[in-house]
Parts: sequence; structure tokens; C-alpha cells
Amino acid sequence: MSQTWNDYQHKHKDRFLEELLEMLRIPSVSARTEHKADMIRCAEMVQKRLLEAGADKAEIIATAGHPIVYGEKIIDPTKPTVLVYGHYDVQPPDPLELWNSGPFDPIIKDGKIFARGSCDDKGQFYMHVKAMETMVQTNTLCTNIKFCIEGEEEVGSMHLTEFVIANKELLKADVILISDTAMLSLENPSIDIGVRGLSYIEVEVTGPNRDLHSGVYGGAVANPITILSKMIASLHDENNRITIPGFYDDVIIATDSERQMMASAPFSEEEYKTDLGIKEVWGETGFTTNERTGIRPTIEINGIWGGYTGEGAKTVLPSKAFAKISARLVPNQHSHKITELLINHLQKIAPPTIELKATLHHGGEPYMTPVDCKAYQAAAAAIYDTFGKKPIPVRGGGSIPICALFEKELGVKIVFMGFGLDSDNLHSPNEKFNVENYYKGIETIPYFHKHFAAIK
Amino acid sequence: MSQTWNDYQHKHKDRFLEELLEMLRIPSVSARTEHKADMIRCAEMVQKRLLEAGADKAEIIATAGHPIVYGEKIIDPTKPTVLVYGHYDVQPPDPLELWNSGPFDPIIKDGKIFARGSCDDKGQFYMHVKAMETMVQTNTLCTNIKFCIEGEEEVGSMHLTEFVIANKELLKADVILISDTAMLSLENPSIDIGVRGLSYIEVEVTGPNRDLHSGVYGGAVANPITILSKMIASLHDENNRITIPGFYDDVIIATDSERQMMASAPFSEEEYKTDLGIKEVWGETGFTTNERTGIRPTIEINGIWGGYTGEGAKTVLPSKAFAKISARLVPNQHSHKITELLINHLQKIAPPTIELKATLHHGGEPYMTPVDCKAYQAAAAAIYDTFGKKPIPVRGGGSIPICALFEKELGVKIVFMGFGLDSDNLHSPNEKFNVENYYKGIETIPYFHKHFAAIK
Repeated sequence: MSQTWNDYQHKHKDRFLEELLEMLRIPSVSARTEHKADMIRCAEMVQKRLLEAGADKAEIIATAGHPIVYGEKIIDPTKPTVLVYGHYDVQPPDPLELWNSGPFDPIIKDGKIFARGSCDDKGQFYMHVKAMETMVQTNTLCTNIKFCIEGEEEVGSMHLTEFVIANKELLKADVILISDTAMLSLENPSIDIGVRGLSYIEVEVTGPNRDLHSGVYGGAVANPITILSKMIASLHDENNRITIPGFYDDVIIATDSERQMMASAPFSEEEYKTDLGIKEVWGETGFTTNERTGIRPTIEINGIWGGYTGEGAKTVLPSKAFAKISARLVPNQHSHKITELLINHLQKIAPPTIELKATLHHGGEPYMTPVDCKAYQAAAAAIYDTFGKKPIPVRGGGSIPICALFEKELGVKIVFMGFGLDSDNLHSPNEKFNVENYYKGIETIPYFHKHFAAIK
Repeated sequence: MSQTWNDYQHKHKDRFLEELLEMLRIPSVSARTEHKADMIRCAEMVQKRLLEAGADKAEIIATAGHPIVYGEKIIDPTKPTVLVYGHYDVQPPDPLELWNSGPFDPIIKDGKIFARGSCDDKGQFYMHVKAMETMVQTNTLCTNIKFCIEGEEEVGSMHLTEFVIANKELLKADVILISDTAMLSLENPSIDIGVRGLSYIEVEVTGPNRDLHSGVYGGAVANPITILSKMIASLHDENNRITIPGFYDDVIIATDSERQMMASAPFSEEEYKTDLGIKEVWGETGFTTNERTGIRPTIEINGIWGGYTGEGAKTVLPSKAFAKISARLVPNQHSHKITELLINHLQKIAPPTIELKATLHHGGEPYMTPVDCKAYQAAAAAIYDTFGKKPIPVRGGGSIPICALFEKELGVKIVFMGFGLDSDNLHSPNEKFNVENYYKGIETIPYFHKHFAAIK
């Protein structure tokens, strides 16, 4: 099989890359209403490519938000079915001035594809489309494949939830396979066995009913920026532990053996600091860097604004200040509960000199894959086939909001076969995806189907 | 005299207003480089109007920044000379969406002129131009008048400083008269006897060298917004007292009698709160609202920004966060010293997980007019003539950066005859100036010249 697959993929590799670049040219930013038409255009391209790759059918399913693309190739209903989940929407490209090339004008430089969505997640879900094409064209497909490619992952998968609940039969599968995470490196392949949950809120602090002259009123009227800063500052104590009462209550403490396993994964704090250009790491006292992002919940301020932010100086005491705040959650924490805790806590600490409005953007539950399940074993075997090494199981820091719901509604496990790298600048300027990783993913995925069919 | 003045002003009042509106249509925003041409256009209009009003000469003087307009009407070198200082530059109009009409599209509604600069300071310095016209046209001018109208007051009067030092002879005068402050109300006329000084800085906090995914890195890398918030939060203690060591060292404590005088000025805290839409006032424990803005130094955050500030949600851990921070200073504090204290303090409290850059925008010294000087007495007498009441001396919260330098270099006192109101939305959306106050200023100013010539 492997020779056939390799020959086919080698022959078509330039086209595989060009097709991805074409999709990356569509600015499918789900957070911005002005990209509504681009979202539809991108969904149509996904549909077309699925059909070209050999899907029996591919449909665009409208939602109250952005559409979902569903596709399938059913070879035999008695065979195992793999449901591939991914997303065609991308993060906003801001700040634009920090990109070295246009975010939607993909270029290949030093073996890397630079574009918004190259890794997260167009480049990664498209590996599955090309893997299916490979298996179909070489007559080696041994599983049924379903595709559920949504357009709202970056904004919380709100409408996918309804769709999953209403279409359990359609989505019925034996495993859910997702490529939307990273591996340590091509030399040290790894599989994420956990993703963190998310609670994302926005707060608006209102002081006076209008912007004021900071000389005439300064010192006598609460400045909403000062108050918001004090509220944010109070969320972490001197050990960088979150101060919200009850925040850690449901956290399952990782076992010593899991912590030992994490500590044994190759990691250089010096290289980490050099890569990020920082003098010192930061985080909760008593935990290592990988533990801080893997097994511990966090609160981050994703954005803040208020007052005069233009060129030069303006002596204003602003009426309002705003912040976007998100918490990452670990297994056994619940997004709904943490969102409520967070909002209630902010309301409680808001002083009477200002008004606070706190609203939910979106949330998602944490998820963990048991390393002893068959799906994980099939993924590990596939990695071994193409990398020649057993993958290291690691806990990732990111979130894929729909995971917990998938498991609950469809009753099957999820496996994260990610081929990105942490250094791919996800959600940042100059997002990239190594061409080699893209091809390696396309090469590895058919082995997953082979092993999963055999184990199952 | 008064009948002649009144008749002339009454006859020309519509034109007086129209000329002001014409000047308000020029967006002379000194902080923004894109308004460079507008600044020149506005300076040219000031020059033209001075000549039309009877000035012997009026010149536009180029500086390394925006030009200064100098004009004069010398009737007799042996007579007293009044130097009128004002500024034709205005604050940026942001946030634009909160204006009910265009900031540079002046309209008159309910007897108020709504436009950026209507009160601060085009409307106020222009009263002096029209007062001069009145005296010239009615042959009643009894002093020499010099005008120094600059274009950089809102950005710290950087180049005016050089100009004053280099042109002491040209600017030689017996008093400096400034209308760039407020009075309590037309029913309770007042004269500001003090303006606060200013230190205005900008800080840039850099964490990682690029924006990061807040899931992949969150909890392990210092977030510059969190760090900046903690630094800002630490600047005031639980009594809203500034925590920077040495900040209050040079403050002259107001005497009990001055505090009693301030307490006797008409002021309703309930009305103040209702006007601003706040439930509670804020400020340094142990001081009243008027003391907090009048006799105490303050620190305000004028702007803050960092991370994602657009629509929707973006899970980013940003590379940078910024703030604009200013201190208002009271007599005997020194802008240079406080700026240094502030910057050094921020550098000192900056943790090693981030890089801090703090730079000066501009500064200015505090100033006080002695109530027993002749110039103040002339102003008080003029107010009495047209309002029928003795003005209340009050301490204003704002700053006019050039005052201390004027006194030092020219050796004369400064009098603030302001006709604005605190509620005029200076530096805010919907800045206004009551038409009645504009006319009242034009009516009152000739009396100042009359009294000053007589006293002198």
C-alpha cells in the first residue's frame, strides 16, 4: 500500500499545495460580519474539493451563523467509519502591520506556507481531503469517511452544537479524527491527548457618562481604565494563582506519573525563551512551563482598550474602558460554571464608582483522549509507520470547543493527530505551516485508516 | 464707554459669531500630522482676522512644529501693554461616534455652539480679537495689545518655549491675559487663580516577540496587558493616594483659610454626580471634590490598548500593551522632576518577564496668580462691571503649559479670565461654548483694559 500511496502523492504534490494556497486566499474570518460572503465562498470551495477528492456527496448546510460543510464517502456500511472534523474559518489577521506578507496572499518561503489559516486549520483539515483522494484513487480505502468542516470554530462553534444534536445519525461514526493541534517536532512526533476548555467574556466598565477633561475632573471621578486595571490586577495573586474563589475547585490534580511523563518529553526552556524573545517565563508557582499550559487552568487578558489610543497626547478621563478576558479550563472544569464564577466575581469586585457590564462571548469544555483506547493506538501506529518513532502523548494548551459535545452526543472517542508546530504563529501575525509537515500529514493519515480498520 | 461698546457689539454680533464658526470649521488638530496643512490654514485665518480687527501688524512665525501667530496694536509705547495668549490648535475629536454633530461642522443648538475648539480655545481667544475690534472701532482703546496665539498648546507648547525665550523684547508686556479656563456659572462668576502642571508620558510593555495563541502559551508567558494592569493598579493605594515615593514631597499644603474659601464656593455634589451620571465620586481620602481637582496632584490613565480590540473574540496573548499616563501637578511641584520620578518608578516596578519603554510626551509647570496683584484686581473689577458681582477666586484643575515660563521670562503676572463652563465637554465629544458666554466675554474684556490702564 505504502508504495502506491507514495507514488500517487509524489506525482500530485504540487497540485496538493496549490489547492491549499487557493483556499488560503479566501479571507474566511468568522468573527467579522463583513466577511460573511467570504465564508460562503470558502464553504463552496470545501464542498467542491470534497467532491473532486471522491466524496459521494458534499453539502453546504446553512446555520443561523456560518455554514457547515458535510461530506461523505461510504464504501460499506458494515465497515468502520471515521468522522473528520475541521474548520475552514480563521482568526482575524490583526495586527496587520506586523505581517511580512499579506495574510490572505499566501507565499512559500524557506519551506513554510505563510498565510492566516495555513496551519489553523485549512492546511490541516485539507490533509484529510488529500489523504482521502489518495486512498480513493489508489483503491485502498478501507473505512467509510465522513467530513464535518465548520465555519465557527474560532468563535465558539455555537451553531455546530445544534447541528450535531439534530444529526446524530448522519454523523454516526466509530471515531472522530481531528488535525487542529501541534506536534513537538518532526523529530519528536507527539499526539495531543488533551485540549483545554474555554470561557471567553467581554467586560465594559463605565465611569462618567461622557469623556472628561482629565485636568478639570481628574482626581475626583473614577477613571474606568484605572478601575479596570485594578480589577484585572486582582485576578492573579503574587504566585500567579487565580484568586477567584472556587476557580480551582473542580480541577483534577494530575498524578505524579503523568507529571513525570510530561517532564520526560523533550523540552528546552532556554530554546523556548529564545524563540519568544523573553528573559523569564511566567506562571503559577509550583508548576513547570508544560504543566502550566497543559494541566492547569489559566486566565488571560486577550485585549484591552479605553481612552485615547491615537498618535500624540490627549488629556482625557474616558467614559469607558473594555477588556476581553478568557479562561482556559482543564478536565472536570465546566465552561458554564467558570463563566458564571468569572462574571459574578467581576461584578462583586466592581466598585460603586463605576458600572460593570460583563457578557459571554463563547465557551467550550475541556477534553481528554484515553491513551489506551483503540483510536489512540491506531494514531500511534500510523505515526510510527511514517516517522519511525512512537509518538509522545502530550497535553495541549489550546481548545477545540466542540470535542466534549461530540463525545457526549456521538458516543465515540476523539483523536488529535496534529501536524502543526507550536511555533506556527497560530492566532498571530505570520501564521505558517511547514510544507514538509503538510505532506507528512497527507502521508500519515491513510495509515490511520488502515490501522483503525484492522483494530476495529 | 459702555454704551458705545454695547451699541457696536450689538450691531455686529451676528458677524462676530459667524467669524468664529468659520474658524471652527478648520480641523486644526495639533497632535495629528495629517492636519499639518489645516494648522497653517488656521494660522492664516487668525492673522487675517487680527489685521481686520485693527492690529498694526500680524505675522505667522514658523517653528519646528506648528506656527505661532503674533499680532500687535501699539497706540502709545508709554501706555500699559496687555499680552493676550491663546491657542488655535484643538484636541483630537475622537471618539467620533459619540458626537451628535460633526466636530468640525459647528452648529448652534439651544444657545450653544457645538464644535471641537468652540470653548478650548478658539471661542475664547477670539473674544479678545473682537474686543480689540470694539475698542479700535469706538476709539476707546487705552492700552497697547499684543497677541500670541500658538498652535501647540494641546501638545505641550514645545516650540513656544523657544520663541518666548528668543523674543522677550517683542513680547514685553505689563500683564498676560488668558481666556482658556472656566467660570462657575454666569450667575456665579469666578476667576481661576491657579492651573495645574502636567507630566504626560507613554509606556510600552513588551512581552513575547510576537502575538501568541493564548491557549498554547497562556499561563506560561507573561501577558503584557496583565503586567501593565498590575503596574497601573499599584499607582494608587486603597485611599487613592499615589504610591510613588517622593511624589508629594514638593506639594505645598493649602492653608486652612484657602480650604475654607474653596469650601464656601457654590458647589452641589449631588448636581455634580447627576451631571456626570455617576453614583459616587472618587478620589484621595481626606479631600473634597474641589480640593481633589484644585489643590492636589493626580495621576490619570488617558488611554490604554493592547491585544485584540475588534468585534468578536480572538484568543491571543499579545506581544505588546500600551498606556498614556499623565500627572497633574500643583504649585511647587516640577514637571521635569515628576516625569523622572514617574518613569523611574515604572522602570523599577516592571517585572523581569517584560520590557518596559517609557517616554515623555510633554509637560508643563503649575501656576498661581496672587489675588492681591493689580492684574487680578483689574480682572475682578471688569467682571463686577458686567456681571454685577465680585468674582470668586477658584483653583482650576487644568493646565496651560506655558504659564510658568511666561512669568519667568517676561517677569509679569498672568490673569485667567475664562468664560467657559466645566460642563463644556472640553477634550470630549460634543464640546460646546454657550453663545451667551461668548458675548459676555467680548463685553467684559474692554473693561479689563480700562481698569488695567487706570490701576497701572
